[in-house]
Amino acid sequence: MEINKNYKNLEASYLFSTIAKKVKEFAEKNPDKKVIRLGIGDVTRPLCKSVVEAMKKAVDEMGTFEGFHGYGPEQGYDFLKEKIQGYYKEKNVTLKLDEIFISDGAKSDLGNILDIFSKENTVLIPDPVYPVYVDTNIMQGRKIIFAQANQENNFLPLPNDDVKADIVYICSPNNPTGAVYNKEQLKKWVDWANKNNAVILYDAAYECFINDNNLPRSIFEIEGAKTCAIEFCSLSKTAGFTGTRCGYTVVPFELEFDDMSLNKMWLRRQTTKFNGVPYIVQRGAEAVFSEQGQKEIKENIDYYKKNAKIIADTLTKHNVWFTGGVHSPYIWLKCPNNMTSWEFFDFLLEKAQVVGTPGAGFGKNGEGFFRLTSFGTNELTKEAMERLDKMLTTYCK
Amino acid sequence: MEINKNYKNLEASYLFSTIAKKVKEFAEKNPDKKVIRLGIGDVTRPLCKSVVEAMKKAVDEMGTFEGFHGYGPEQGYDFLKEKIQGYYKEKNVTLKLDEIFISDGAKSDLGNILDIFSKENTVLIPDPVYPVYVDTNIMQGRKIIFAQANQENNFLPLPNDDVKADIVYICSPNNPTGAVYNKEQLKKWVDWANKNNAVILYDAAYECFINDNNLPRSIFEIEGAKTCAIEFCSLSKTAGFTGTRCGYTVVPFELEFDDMSLNKMWLRRQTTKFNGVPYIVQRGAEAVFSEQGQKEIKENIDYYKKNAKIIADTLTKHNVWFTGGVHSPYIWLKCPNNMTSWEFFDFLLEKAQVVGTPGAGFGKNGEGFFRLTSFGTNELTKEAMERLDKMLTTYCK
Repeated sequence: MEINKNYKNLEASYLFSTIAKKVKEFAEKNPDKKVIRLGIGDVTRPLCKSVVEAMKKAVDEMGTFEGFHGYGPEQGYDFLKEKIQGYYKEKNVTLKLDEIFISDGAKSDLGNILDIFSKENTVLIPDPVYPVYVDTNIMQGRKIIFAQANQENNFLPLPNDDVKADIVYICSPNNPTGAVYNKEQLKKWVDWANKNNAVILYDAAYECFINDNNLPRSIFEIEGAKTCAIEFCSLSKTAGFTGTRCGYTVVPFELEFDDMSLNKMWLRRQTTKFNGVPYIVQRGAEAVFSEQGQKEIKENIDYYKKNAKIIADTLTKHNVWFTGGVHSPYIWLKCPNNMTSWEFFDFLLEKAQVVGTPGAGFGKNGEGFFRLTSFGTNELTKEAMERLDKMLTTYCK
Repeated sequence: MEINKNYKNLEASYLFSTIAKKVKEFAEKNPDKKVIRLGIGDVTRPLCKSVVEAMKKAVDEMGTFEGFHGYGPEQGYDFLKEKIQGYYKEKNVTLKLDEIFISDGAKSDLGNILDIFSKENTVLIPDPVYPVYVDTNIMQGRKIIFAQANQENNFLPLPNDDVKADIVYICSPNNPTGAVYNKEQLKKWVDWANKNNAVILYDAAYECFINDNNLPRSIFEIEGAKTCAIEFCSLSKTAGFTGTRCGYTVVPFELEFDDMSLNKMWLRRQTTKFNGVPYIVQRGAEAVFSEQGQKEIKENIDYYKKNAKIIADTLTKHNVWFTGGVHSPYIWLKCPNNMTSWEFFDFLLEKAQVVGTPGAGFGKNGEGFFRLTSFGTNELTKEAMERLDKMLTTYCK
């Protein structure tokens, strides 16, 4: 038996283990100092009431003969797909029910979608980046090139006719940078993809953080996207589903390559290698899209946005350059005093006992940048920013 | 962009749609006749009380700050892995906690495990077979050869030194045939795999139906299996989790090929392309392994086994040759009067209004055989067998 040798090309990531180690060492040396974590990429607020009630009802159903649900459709129940169809309608995007696939999260589908593409394709990935895009392609042995995101383009790289690629990843609002494409910018990517016979894998996991109706919350708000894009979305950050697991993937019927419908290929992939999301979870997800559910999740999103604003205001006050923080739970800042990412990590931990994530961990263009997140509590975020304020006043004039 | 052209080699399966069409036509022509379905591959009894209570508690937790669970470990929570470790201990199999991976079901992992193997491997699959083994390999372009299961070997093919293969699928108790390997037979496969540097993918999804302590419920009961086998198990049939989705995969630390640990490779695959099973579902699965949970699920399994016995007794009475029905929810019978699978399907529907699954749908060696399942109610199974009894008495002496 031979293993898939591509796995030998994967690099181990020590980003989060190194952070944990450094924080542990600091805490041991300074037992009296309270460390505040603003590096966390996970939500902290509980599931909202509507979701809890819906799931308890579904669990009860599963305990009765009449309400028991066995194997469901691999692509998800219509009751949930219809809600998502309606959610897109609000963004003026018309989808057919069978263009929507319920998933156990954007991460799974972003990785698994590669099953339907040839290994011979070249992949274009922005740098800095969510590492999963890179690793899933290394696992399949694809050639990877990078789109340079940097301070000059506000971490929003645009297509270039010289670049030849078959599969392009776009994440907007972006993880880790929080930067958001506007419609004109996204249109450039769509036009480029259609012209170059490329497919865009659009990660919209943070769409719910967008405040401005002029900014696109779905790539399908852009004309021409249905012939070149697949969209991945998730309830993880929208409704606190990181531990409950539900998302959705939109594969338009118009997507055809080599006489094959990508929608039909993905359906075949999912019916063969997936058995659907738990009935209970789909009922919880359905409740997210109810009127009351939308109200409740908005309270949580607003809570996180308030944190983002506290962070952004502190940075603005000190003229620290950053992206994100408005339409995103992430704030991506340029390290003061030209520090490297890890220098600033140590400095921030030492002087303010605040933990964030070094940008260098997300790719070479992340060097000199730093990510803070708004998923903590209001109280701790405020306290952390008071400390940062003091630190910047003292050391970074 | 180029698609994965292997998808063009997939054959569309019309098995279940053809069955549905034939039944619909019959029902329309014979509105007064009650059709009984014994073709169903899904459980019908509700989740047991312990599971319902545990999941409701978990949902409540998720609605509180203290009890909320965000991202969990991709490979599953220790509280569940420890229970599974204990479950294996009862079979005298000692596993380390990190050899156990919690999955959303055997189907997903049986397909996804192929990610860690080279496309150059040759795969050995029994015929007849659960079609997922075949299709997932076609999708990746592997060479497939078949192990011939037939009446002569009681649908339990044994290894042959002339056959060269790198990956072997074994499902015991088998779907669709219900046949079960004994320890001596399984030892032959283990020895063959170790000798030929092959890996066995062991599908143990129906292990809970085994009544006899001398029959292996895990391949790891066989000496030498830890250097050649990966085991896939599921709560789908064990605890009625077909719509709740939880299983587990065991990848021993001893499994090494080309200086790579398959356990580490699978861990990397899962942490990159999977986000774990919902916390709520893992709490439900934990309850399955409690003392009370085991008692409750046993009642359901015994219920299905009672059905299997009713079917088996009817066939025995009429000297119809069959496998399964004792240690399996499936009964695989030789069609009477040398009918083909579809001839018998039509005959059974016409004369007894009973629906089953033509064996020919599971591979060429399934021709002339037929699958009945025990997942219906006692009442309907009894009624169906009274009709079958009458039919066999009248037409198949």
